[in-house]
Amino acid sequence: MRCTTTTLSKQPFFKFEILHTSTKSNARAGLLTTPHGTIKTPAFVPVGTNGAIKCLPHQDVPGMELMFSNTYHLLLQPGLDIIQKAGGLHKFMNRDTPIITDSGGFQVFSLQHNGTLADERSEIKRAQPKQNQSQGRVLTINEKGVSFRSYIDGSQMLLSPESSVDAQKVFGADIIIPLDELPAHHISEATLLSSLERTHRWEERSLQRHLQHVNNQAMYGVIHGSTSERMRTLSTNHLLQLPFDGYCIGGSLGKDAHDLKAILRTVMPLLLNDVQRRPVHLLGIGDEAGILNGVLQGVDQFDSALPTKVARHGTVFVDNQKIGHPVSRTALPGTIPNRMNIRSSKFKDDYRPIDEECDCVACKNHSRAYLHHLVKAKEPVVHALLSHHNLRYTLKLMETQRDMILAGEL
Amino acid sequence: MRCTTTTLSKQPFFKFEILHTSTKSNARAGLLTTPHGTIKTPAFVPVGTNGAIKCLPHQDVPGMELMFSNTYHLLLQPGLDIIQKAGGLHKFMNRDTPIITDSGGFQVFSLQHNGTLADERSEIKRAQPKQNQSQGRVLTINEKGVSFRSYIDGSQMLLSPESSVDAQKVFGADIIIPLDELPAHHISEATLLSSLERTHRWEERSLQRHLQHVNNQAMYGVIHGSTSERMRTLSTNHLLQLPFDGYCIGGSLGKDAHDLKAILRTVMPLLLNDVQRRPVHLLGIGDEAGILNGVLQGVDQFDSALPTKVARHGTVFVDNQKIGHPVSRTALPGTIPNRMNIRSSKFKDDYRPIDEECDCVACKNHSRAYLHHLVKAKEPVVHALLSHHNLRYTLKLMETQRDMILAGEL
Repeated sequence: MRCTTTTLSKQPFFKFEILHTSTKSNARAGLLTTPHGTIKTPAFVPVGTNGAIKCLPHQDVPGMELMFSNTYHLLLQPGLDIIQKAGGLHKFMNRDTPIITDSGGFQVFSLQHNGTLADERSEIKRAQPKQNQSQGRVLTINEKGVSFRSYIDGSQMLLSPESSVDAQKVFGADIIIPLDELPAHHISEATLLSSLERTHRWEERSLQRHLQHVNNQAMYGVIHGSTSERMRTLSTNHLLQLPFDGYCIGGSLGKDAHDLKAILRTVMPLLLNDVQRRPVHLLGIGDEAGILNGVLQGVDQFDSALPTKVARHGTVFVDNQKIGHPVSRTALPGTIPNRMNIRSSKFKDDYRPIDEECDCVACKNHSRAYLHHLVKAKEPVVHALLSHHNLRYTLKLMETQRDMILAGEL
Repeated sequence: MRCTTTTLSKQPFFKFEILHTSTKSNARAGLLTTPHGTIKTPAFVPVGTNGAIKCLPHQDVPGMELMFSNTYHLLLQPGLDIIQKAGGLHKFMNRDTPIITDSGGFQVFSLQHNGTLADERSEIKRAQPKQNQSQGRVLTINEKGVSFRSYIDGSQMLLSPESSVDAQKVFGADIIIPLDELPAHHISEATLLSSLERTHRWEERSLQRHLQHVNNQAMYGVIHGSTSERMRTLSTNHLLQLPFDGYCIGGSLGKDAHDLKAILRTVMPLLLNDVQRRPVHLLGIGDEAGILNGVLQGVDQFDSALPTKVARHGTVFVDNQKIGHPVSRTALPGTIPNRMNIRSSKFKDDYRPIDEECDCVACKNHSRAYLHHLVKAKEPVVHALLSHHNLRYTLKLMETQRDMILAGEL
């Protein structure tokens, strides 16, 4: 058992304290302090792409201490000027707790790859308006940045390391992310290296721009290298030398859970040995097995649109032990059957709540039979109710993990 | 000023007290007591067709003392057996405050007229799932009742006075409605009379069935007669002789606000002279001018899906006086410009709430600019936020009307 407290002395507004690290694994529990409040880690970060959680007022998500919004979407709608005139994203959306924004790179490059990315984070990609996707496309990519056509009005826009940081300065999120390049899959090691080097140059330019006007914001570097152990090692070691406030594990996370586990086995030991003990965020992972595995590996933050996305299709998260499938921490992400679809006719006269022990508004107030009826009757309120449950389930999962780490049980 | 208190002695569980009647108009303020609670009148009754308010958990509508659900929809989905096994509609939807259900007649006959009804209540008709409407159709209408094909599974179903009442007994709503026939428009006086007489026979059979097992439920008779003064008078006088607990003004309410006003001028004096002083419900009217006019005429209850329906199209209700259009109580229903559409680009940088004095969650938390952005970004939560506002606006309108009546200001 190691009890360590680390403060990044340079920036008093941003602090990551590690309260406890497990003796049996790399799992750690901490406290992340930002200008808009404190986040207990390991943390799940719900995704509110357009500055709004899907189907729910963001005020109505108990336990959401950090919220993730997407720069690409916000740049296109409502646009920088509207958020600037509002006084930043917190004021625009009326949220006074911490926010993290990304660089916009992931979404712009997803346009280029046009849905061919076999990626754990596919739910983010699909968050883009489908009907307009054909109009939004990448025009050029060069050292300067990436120019693309807006799917909103067809106008040409440039996303560069500097413009992405400038946008995120206007938004004013507590944690921001530098611009990176997302290469296609199945490229040669040489092409991957070339992309990685550009990403590193872009991240350094982003960091430079950020440090010119820190604005009480923290910046997390993004580790790339796809599924190559050599490239991931290279990227981690390179970025650890830079004065980032934390790290994201990004880029392609591979085609399946095996690839993701291999990536974490490569990068996490390097990140955990960082003398500065900076927080680590695994981008776009929100399934239970993926979270449980990440926590064991020492990951501090996870974000995903998965809980609200599957809710809109009638799928709810359940505790495997309660439905007869014991949780295996060593199971591969994505392979644990911890979901049930309330649309199934077997729930039509099941008057129990989704989970009798859950304290979400759906479980406290309604039966599976009523929720099943709402799905069948196409009542939109069911999307809100099931989203409440899945977010509460995932946030509660993090609370349990944290309690277990602090109690030395993990 | 007349202060009267009337108790329907036969049914101690149901009581309508008139607390105050205006000296300058027929407006009256009362208290309606039902087994599940008390309703302050004049009251607006939000419509939750499928046992759910559109986009909002029904628990989240402050001031909703009575909720309207549709027998036709509930019969088809989830079906009678599911609600019966749940222990009734209150338990199925987990609501312990008063509910009113209709007979199902309006929706079944709307199928027959296939959208050609130019009716003030068009929003109810449109609440039927459009994609399946072609499959749901009326097969036969005779003295027994109306048989139709379910749009859910194509099965043949019979709605008779007895089966409608039996269904409403299972649902267990506090107030129920007898089966009526909805004739087409532009029919001869002879055909209208023939339909009216059938409706009266059906209502009497419904009442008989109801009285065999009152089940702590009240039944309101439905006055028909379309736009014919003679028929409306005949229907009112006929039904007033029957031991109903209250009255609905139903059937075709005409093609426009003129017709509706004329109908109220015919039936309301007769209803208000009723020695038993029973409550009066105007079916399917929820626009501000319609409500204001109805209140002046002495109407006690209004229901409509309008507030939530227009919210889903970005339209919000506003106080005309605040946007420069003084309210005219004598204006025709539907003619007051008391709405604005948040989708309009003029709101993109309007950082004021919809209404600074409104206490709904949308106005307390968000700007027009943010709500406009959510509409443009197709964020489903905006439907919930705008529905919150429109329901709160309409329920608050009733509170204000009631306060004015009690203060002798109306």
